[in-house]
Amino acid sequence: MHEIGVVYRNIRRADGGVAIKLGACGTATVHEAMGRVGLMKPYMRPIYAGAQVAGPAVTVLLQPGDNWMLHVVAEQIQPGDMVVAALTSDSTDGYFGELLATSFAARGAAGLVIDGGVRDVRVLTSMKFPVWSKAISARGTVKATLGSVNVPVVCAGMLVTPGDVIVADDDGVAVVPADRAQKTLEAAAAREANEGEKRAKLAAGVLGLDMYNMREPLQMAGLKYID
Amino acid sequence: MHEIGVVYRNIRRADGGVAIKLGACGTATVHEAMGRVGLMKPYMRPIYAGAQVAGPAVTVLLQPGDNWMLHVVAEQIQPGDMVVAALTSDSTDGYFGELLATSFAARGAAGLVIDGGVRDVRVLTSMKFPVWSKAISARGTVKATLGSVNVPVVCAGMLVTPGDVIVADDDGVAVVPADRAQKTLEAAAAREANEGEKRAKLAAGVLGLDMYNMREPLQMAGLKYID
Amino acid sequence: MHEIGVVYRNIRRADGGVAIKLGACGTATVHEAMGRVGLMKPYMRPIYAGAQVAGPAVTVLLQPGDNWMLHVVAEQIQPGDMVVAALTSDSTDGYFGELLATSFAARGAAGLVIDGGVRDVRVLTSMKFPVWSKAISARGTVKATLGSVNVPVVCAGMLVTPGDVIVADDDGVAVVPADRAQKTLEAAAAREANEGEKRAKLAAGVLGLDMYNMREPLQMAGLKYID
Amino acid sequence: MHEIGVVYRNIRRADGGVAIKLGACGTATVHEAMGRVGLMKPYMRPIYAGAQVAGPAVTVLLQPGDNWMLHVVAEQIQPGDMVVAALTSDSTDGYFGELLATSFAARGAAGLVIDGGVRDVRVLTSMKFPVWSKAISARGTVKATLGSVNVPVVCAGMLVTPGDVIVADDDGVAVVPADRAQKTLEAAAAREANEGEKRAKLAAGVLGLDMYNMREPLQMAGLKYID
Amino acid sequence: MHEIGVVYRNIRRADGGVAIKLGACGTATVHEAMGRVGLMKPYMRPIYAGAQVAGPAVTVLLQPGDNWMLHVVAEQIQPGDMVVAALTSDSTDGYFGELLATSFAARGAAGLVIDGGVRDVRVLTSMKFPVWSKAISARGTVKATLGSVNVPVVCAGMLVTPGDVIVADDDGVAVVPADRAQKTLEAAAAREANEGEKRAKLAAGVLGLDMYNMREPLQMAGLKYID
Amino acid sequence: MHEIGVVYRNIRRADGGVAIKLGACGTATVHEAMGRVGLMKPYMRPIYAGAQVAGPAVTVLLQPGDNWMLHVVAEQIQPGDMVVAALTSDSTDGYFGELLATSFAARGAAGLVIDGGVRDVRVLTSMKFPVWSKAISARGTVKATLGSVNVPVVCAGMLVTPGDVIVADDDGVAVVPADRAQKTLEAAAAREANEGEKRAKLAAGVLGLDMYNMREPLQMAGLKYID
Repeated sequence: MHEIGVVYRNIRRADGGVAIKLGACGTATVHEAMGRVGLMKPYMRPIYAGAQVAGPAVTVLLQPGDNWMLHVVAEQIQPGDMVVAALTSDSTDGYFGELLATSFAARGAAGLVIDGGVRDVRVLTSMKFPVWSKAISARGTVKATLGSVNVPVVCAGMLVTPGDVIVADDDGVAVVPADRAQKTLEAAAAREANEGEKRAKLAAGVLGLDMYNMREPLQMAGLKYID
Repeated sequence: MHEIGVVYRNIRRADGGVAIKLGACGTATVHEAMGRVGLMKPYMRPIYAGAQVAGPAVTVLLQPGDNWMLHVVAEQIQPGDMVVAALTSDSTDGYFGELLATSFAARGAAGLVIDGGVRDVRVLTSMKFPVWSKAISARGTVKATLGSVNVPVVCAGMLVTPGDVIVADDDGVAVVPADRAQKTLEAAAAREANEGEKRAKLAAGVLGLDMYNMREPLQMAGLKYID
Repeated sequence: MHEIGVVYRNIRRADGGVAIKLGACGTATVHEAMGRVGLMKPYMRPIYAGAQVAGPAVTVLLQPGDNWMLHVVAEQIQPGDMVVAALTSDSTDGYFGELLATSFAARGAAGLVIDGGVRDVRVLTSMKFPVWSKAISARGTVKATLGSVNVPVVCAGMLVTPGDVIVADDDGVAVVPADRAQKTLEAAAAREANEGEKRAKLAAGVLGLDMYNMREPLQMAGLKYID
Repeated sequence: MHEIGVVYRNIRRADGGVAIKLGACGTATVHEAMGRVGLMKPYMRPIYAGAQVAGPAVTVLLQPGDNWMLHVVAEQIQPGDMVVAALTSDSTDGYFGELLATSFAARGAAGLVIDGGVRDVRVLTSMKFPVWSKAISARGTVKATLGSVNVPVVCAGMLVTPGDVIVADDDGVAVVPADRAQKTLEAAAAREANEGEKRAKLAAGVLGLDMYNMREPLQMAGLKYID
Repeated sequence: MHEIGVVYRNIRRADGGVAIKLGACGTATVHEAMGRVGLMKPYMRPIYAGAQVAGPAVTVLLQPGDNWMLHVVAEQIQPGDMVVAALTSDSTDGYFGELLATSFAARGAAGLVIDGGVRDVRVLTSMKFPVWSKAISARGTVKATLGSVNVPVVCAGMLVTPGDVIVADDDGVAVVPADRAQKTLEAAAAREANEGEKRAKLAAGVLGLDMYNMREPLQMAGLKYID
Repeated sequence: MHEIGVVYRNIRRADGGVAIKLGACGTATVHEAMGRVGLMKPYMRPIYAGAQVAGPAVTVLLQPGDNWMLHVVAEQIQPGDMVVAALTSDSTDGYFGELLATSFAARGAAGLVIDGGVRDVRVLTSMKFPVWSKAISARGTVKATLGSVNVPVVCAGMLVTPGDVIVADDDGVAVVPADRAQKTLEAAAAREANEGEKRAKLAAGVLGLDMYNMREPLQMAGLKYID
């Protein structure tokens, strides 16, 4: 599917305000609001706990052991963007570190999601530059082979089209197609609206069995209680 | 081995006081005190560092991608219980999150051990609800297929019978059969009693080689020193 | 390759002062300064974030499920040494814990790198005794079979000769052959010298594309921009 | 749960004739007949294709890197038995090879299921001694530490009680509790009885959608067809 | 990205004749002819050696532990199609076996590619129904939750759009977008045309160093020969 | 440890006749004869069953995703050599296929051991060119970055010095240092000499417990028999 050696300069980004609001909802809520789809695989972990960000995706496709295209994608970053880096084959090398983070931050990037490794994680943590990655590795890379920028990529099992909203927090990374961002936000907001009430009931000792009226369907499915 | 579709309401819990004292000993000591058995596999990790808890096991068997039975088990929780969730096949989905944690906490659960995934980990961390899991994942689950509650289960490679004492800390999770809890506690206490003295000696520079009288058995096994 | 059942008492350690300076450079810089070689596999992770140490390697070869030789190696530790523990076959058991850490610390060890498991991680963290390991596991080990001390070992995919400099931080673990330590330090220092300037430029918004003069080689490699 | 250092000589074996008939049904059918439970994890693979056997379980618990107890279990084998070897911690070493296979075969063992490694696989294949294992490895083991024989063990995620029926083929390994063997055989036979008719219909081009009357439940679940 | 609960009946299939010719080229050649892209991850393995097939993709998205949609997709199969089954979360259960294979074969399917498990592999092998899968497992599945048919899916890391050509052999699985099938075939044929000559030269002892004129670029890259 | 960009033309090969005899002993026997050391990790698997070869090692160090140096090493192959390919970071790409195999075979190579992927496995199998690899993958590689030839490498966890004897069969791969080859052969031959007698006794029903006089040491270790 991938084109190699091309940089698309003009992409249609999802609305930045919508992206920020989706970020505030968090990965789990957004994923539920889309109908329980859109998550990257759970091996994608944040390099430090507590970051929760979102933004339109700028994508980059890297060759194994080669981070040349990360310099190319830097130029395409607009403030608020999330960079999504995919690889043409599995690798855990350290494609990204302090200097690239400094550059990405200067361009206004909201964060990086990379299906590979990252290094200088102590510095990135102190810079508060959030990264979700498959690995942490000091191993450096060459700059010898072309990949692409702003082509659709598969990152950690999920298709990402440039401009899609990327939502990332301690639970992982979700991808919202640009044309579904607004609708997803509405569904997420509706979902959150009645969570407070549920939480209060459960905290007061009401059981989910009763709150969700599960006793009858459980019985019909054949559940047996034995004393 | 598993029965599907049953909930045992009456289980014989290990003594709660003994459980709490075993928890104070920690996983490594308890495992040693049992004769070096009883540990779940080391892929079980806490969602945050520093929690150390113990309690009688209430068990639940889940089907892949389905968390219905977690609502059923909630009703069976008594204060101080540890919930142990096993799966009928490998999965990393997020079976448990903020709402269920609120409910479990309201029931007095000491924590959760799950051979699958968990989500809302930032909230669970701030709630101080400890979870040991195989994965962290935002992916939601359906409520369509029955499992069981309070049947013996295999969780992360270890058999757990309802009522067994579960001990969990940063080193992992140990399972103490209910009928061996008291004896294990005595062995653990004895083990701890002389650790202080050993620690002091080692801190003062005495070698384990001398403290444990290892030099002769090492020589008999054929160890050679070369200058 | 391995000899079993021998302890070499006299090894040629890399210069301790050079080791400490290499430690200050960090794993990524040292690895780059050696020409992008010398890293252990990225599954080696610190038990707590933020430690950054270095020292000459004292090596120990362990048999699976057996930590006897860790007591033997303790006697060979000199202040500032890094202990490197390899295994004759893959294992995640907990070979090292509080008591051995107390002993190693009393001998002046700078830290431990082990291609296996470690336990008592909460105590080790509070002791500030840094460990890089493949796993965390409460599982104990026996003392029945000989390994060796101060033989060359392969640890996490990397050959370590006794006396080599081990550099470890949040990005992983690097190995610098003793006879290349001085030269590597010079290359690392040179590398760091001009990082500050680069960082400042990138922070000011200069692109790596321009700073590194990449535009022409990218064009020659065939990169196409599409509007 | 495990006792260490004991050999139970008298176990209640499931009926051998029933076991052989269960073996003829195969792993998948037996697992379905039990209500879709009882399978070891799918990493257990046969060392050669085409073997399909079953028999009562004789169990052995091994320590990591130590195969001493395989000699102890040999004496407990009766003709038709399946030996099930579990380990106290994960390992891929080669615990079993040509000589032990010769001994097991002389005792009449039907095969071996081992949650570890095996070697001499070319010879075992030519001997037609079937083994299901987690790994193939030439690495040898010591004889230094006790385990147990004929205690309940967890092997590849499944509890095996001595005497249970073990069914193994190219699809994996199933465990049938001894007291459910007869009932499981009846359910398996019933299941097989109408498979032939189904197979004929499907081969003739009838769709499962129609044969199983799925169209209406699919529509009720909300499935939409789009031209 | 995924829609849940829909079946697209009309898809634009790549030309069947072109697909068959791509199949004759094999996975490696096709992947090279596309510019070294388009491969599924290498964990996808054939259940038996020697099968080499190709055809337009009919896709199906399954929920974990649920194979309901495989019956739905059966109706959409046309002779020569390759069925590509993706999952909404990682699973190794046995979603496909003898009965479904009988049905798929009756519909004329060329084979199945599934990012999950398969069972009855001995029968499938004797039927010569080729399957590439992530796992072999006897574990059965339920029929409770909807997925989709003929939506774009990510299978083993690769985007598959319905109608794309799937090429599969002992080296793995390649995906050729329908609109690039003809061009890819031409490039693959050109590639094969001069392989015979190269093979003959190499077999005669000519070195690749000379045949590909590599000596000068190697020298320019700095390669040093040491006697 | 690795030098990059060098080719050592003169290496001291272990005696070819000794290598061939070690090959006839097989991996397990050779590994035992060395004192139970020298094995690569068990993820190294043959691409087809039944090959058993040995020869002096010619080594090559590859960069990830780059097979340039395989053409360089081809020139250094002498009849009977085993090529050992290591990688500077983990990768499963297909570095080696039909054309290189044709060239290696023309040079007289006995086989290839590669800590990465291989392709064209059906053709390699029909050519009877044996390969032990970590993966099978159709994914191609570039020719852009230097590695080295005939430097010491770590392959699948084992140090290989050029000229060492490599022994490979269905059980895996063993490495015998050149200067220990003769002695290892003698130990292996001695080991084989009395295997026939042991095999005959065990086949006749003698137990290992008696043949190896294990009953007393088992009793002394505390083993208890329970009726």
